[in-house]
Amino acid sequence: MVQVAVMGYGVVGSGVVEVLSEHSESIAKRAKEQIDIKYILDIREFPDSPFVSRFTKNFDDILNDDDVKVVAEVMGGVHPAYEFTKQCLLKGKSVVTSNKELVATKGAELLEIARQNNVNYLFEASVGGGIPIIRPISQCLAANEVIEIAGILNGTTNFILTKMIRENMSFDDALGMAQKLGYAEKNPAADVEGHDACRKICILASLAYGKHVYPQYVHTNGITGMTLEDVAYASSWGGVIKLIGQVKRLDDGQLDITVEPMFIEKNSQLANVDDVFNGILVRGDATGDVVFYGKGAGKLPTASAVVADIIDCVKHLKARKYLHWIDGGDDIVKPYSQTVYPVYIRLESSLGKQAVTEKVTALFKNARSILRTNAPENEFAFVTDDMLVYEQENAVNALEQDGIHVLSKIRISDL
Amino acid sequence: MVQVAVMGYGVVGSGVVEVLSEHSESIAKRAKEQIDIKYILDIREFPDSPFVSRFTKNFDDILNDDDVKVVAEVMGGVHPAYEFTKQCLLKGKSVVTSNKELVATKGAELLEIARQNNVNYLFEASVGGGIPIIRPISQCLAANEVIEIAGILNGTTNFILTKMIRENMSFDDALGMAQKLGYAEKNPAADVEGHDACRKICILASLAYGKHVYPQYVHTNGITGMTLEDVAYASSWGGVIKLIGQVKRLDDGQLDITVEPMFIEKNSQLANVDDVFNGILVRGDATGDVVFYGKGAGKLPTASAVVADIIDCVKHLKARKYLHWIDGGDDIVKPYSQTVYPVYIRLESSLGKQAVTEKVTALFKNARSILRTNAPENEFAFVTDDMLVYEQENAVNALEQDGIHVLSKIRISDL
Repeated sequence: MVQVAVMGYGVVGSGVVEVLSEHSESIAKRAKEQIDIKYILDIREFPDSPFVSRFTKNFDDILNDDDVKVVAEVMGGVHPAYEFTKQCLLKGKSVVTSNKELVATKGAELLEIARQNNVNYLFEASVGGGIPIIRPISQCLAANEVIEIAGILNGTTNFILTKMIRENMSFDDALGMAQKLGYAEKNPAADVEGHDACRKICILASLAYGKHVYPQYVHTNGITGMTLEDVAYASSWGGVIKLIGQVKRLDDGQLDITVEPMFIEKNSQLANVDDVFNGILVRGDATGDVVFYGKGAGKLPTASAVVADIIDCVKHLKARKYLHWIDGGDDIVKPYSQTVYPVYIRLESSLGKQAVTEKVTALFKNARSILRTNAPENEFAFVTDDMLVYEQENAVNALEQDGIHVLSKIRISDL
Repeated sequence: MVQVAVMGYGVVGSGVVEVLSEHSESIAKRAKEQIDIKYILDIREFPDSPFVSRFTKNFDDILNDDDVKVVAEVMGGVHPAYEFTKQCLLKGKSVVTSNKELVATKGAELLEIARQNNVNYLFEASVGGGIPIIRPISQCLAANEVIEIAGILNGTTNFILTKMIRENMSFDDALGMAQKLGYAEKNPAADVEGHDACRKICILASLAYGKHVYPQYVHTNGITGMTLEDVAYASSWGGVIKLIGQVKRLDDGQLDITVEPMFIEKNSQLANVDDVFNGILVRGDATGDVVFYGKGAGKLPTASAVVADIIDCVKHLKARKYLHWIDGGDDIVKPYSQTVYPVYIRLESSLGKQAVTEKVTALFKNARSILRTNAPENEFAFVTDDMLVYEQENAVNALEQDGIHVLSKIRISDL
């Protein structure tokens, strides 16, 4: 029998306890050991829980109990999850987690501590909920050079965009509906401003390229500014708008990594990933495109990924698993202004079609006008060829100085 | 340094050698050991190969060389691959393979020999080419009960069906094109008659349910009878025809496992898997639907999966990996005639609409007529509710006795 502790009894934590207890028999068969939950750490009280005797408010109970070999950290947030995780690893306990914020900000350090103490730090649940993605990238694609990873990594924003695209719902209405359905939190900033997706693409990039990419170096743009006008133009262009976390290695070795809304062509594999689903495309030099699709969040999917990691730790109590990356410097990310991509721009001007067209074609590379039905007279939209971001920005500034107001600027994906 | 041998220098074998040598540095980093190809086994001669000194025609060179720790069997076919694999495992060498035929027919036995000799027998490349699927099912979904697996598992037939659906090409023309492009072999039977897909669904079923399911117990129907008329009716019904390998566990513990063409609704995740791509849906009780998508064949995708298994073996030279299932009896598969599903039927009769409708509604459960443009006067088509297969067959026989000729009968999927 192997004893484990669960730290945090929120949505994921209670799911972990549920999966471990309800599937205990089949899990024991797979882990080749009975798995017993010795402690559940939470500051709240759960007097009616069937596990009431396992609850503790004192982290030291777990830390100082040498019988506890594996700890599931499902508290979320950086503190005190970071301190707790570090202490467990130093004490020779393996730790598994769904905490993307912690992995994205402290992963390299915690992986190194795990290595030094010959224990495991696993985090399959931190990206894509129940979709297997961390292991496939680190194991199955081990014989590939990863050219690019691009994903719809946040279900909340994908739900909102889907409602805007499919039902012509405004951003505010769609957000309200997502909150009502429990898909979005009261304070939805981490989702709609792209921070959640940013943490996830940082974890995938670190894994694929072996060096920690910290979220603060990643240009991150959410979907708060998204309008139905942009959705209509995307459709007339032949695609949809999705919030994409993307990373690729450039020829000079730096990473082009961003989180932002993008125009995606309708026949792209990511264009049909709708509602709260996630889709992650991994482009390998040998495999070509491989896509993983499923529910990226939710109590049971995420809990089942955490439990799969617990099983793996139990099977590898004396062996180290594969996951590792080293600390990354501040120069591994190409500055956003120096990245290159085509762009869609929507603008407003009373100068008239001919004058606007002249200015736009002079400033933007191969600008082609696109149209939508019922556009007001003074609205114009176009798409460009590849341009450096700072050239895009200079061109936008030049338009503004001529009294042409830029309403939207959205990246066009090469996916 | 770890020495390995590659048995078979065909498409996959030469790809394995290519990936191992061209990525040797990054592979060494991942495996934490340099990997050296000591032997390549092939009965042919390759005097111009840069690896000419490694070739041998004598299997015993590999078998009796204790320096060879890992062997890649990429010969295909059951014999002599089976004997070679067995002898290698018995000698304490780990074996990795892309040979689905061998795994599907001898998997349980070879896995047991591997277990007894404390070595590994891995076969990520046997299903889905470069798409990670074996490991995700066995590891990441370990905390799930697998409710169902359904997949487009054969790229050749999917290419042919895609051409029929998208370009209205006849089966024969599409097959000819597939042969011209190198997607189909001169003798295409293994692909178009469903045997290749059958081997793959057997491997996935064995893995998910822990008991070997042998291909001879699986009802297997290919796409040779497929017509453009059926494609048109599928479209008017709201879907497409795909060759699906499917397995689910029934309440009585038996497996409903088949390979056959099915009507798939347009909004199903598998409906948009086109051309030579594969898509595999795994329905877990906790994760819900997870879909894996990518190129299911090809030299480099398959080779990269084989190499990933080699890396895994090198990292686990003294440890056993997770893969295992036991021998299955002949009673684990529900007899096909006792399975239940709705069906599409197309028929030909000169009895006239009213007479045909009367007979059909009397014999089939809730039969609803479906239409296509330009159908001849004497053609009729309908879809039913769930029916036992032997009831379907009895009803078809009754129609035939009344002079109504059944042209097509295709399963309707619940995906």
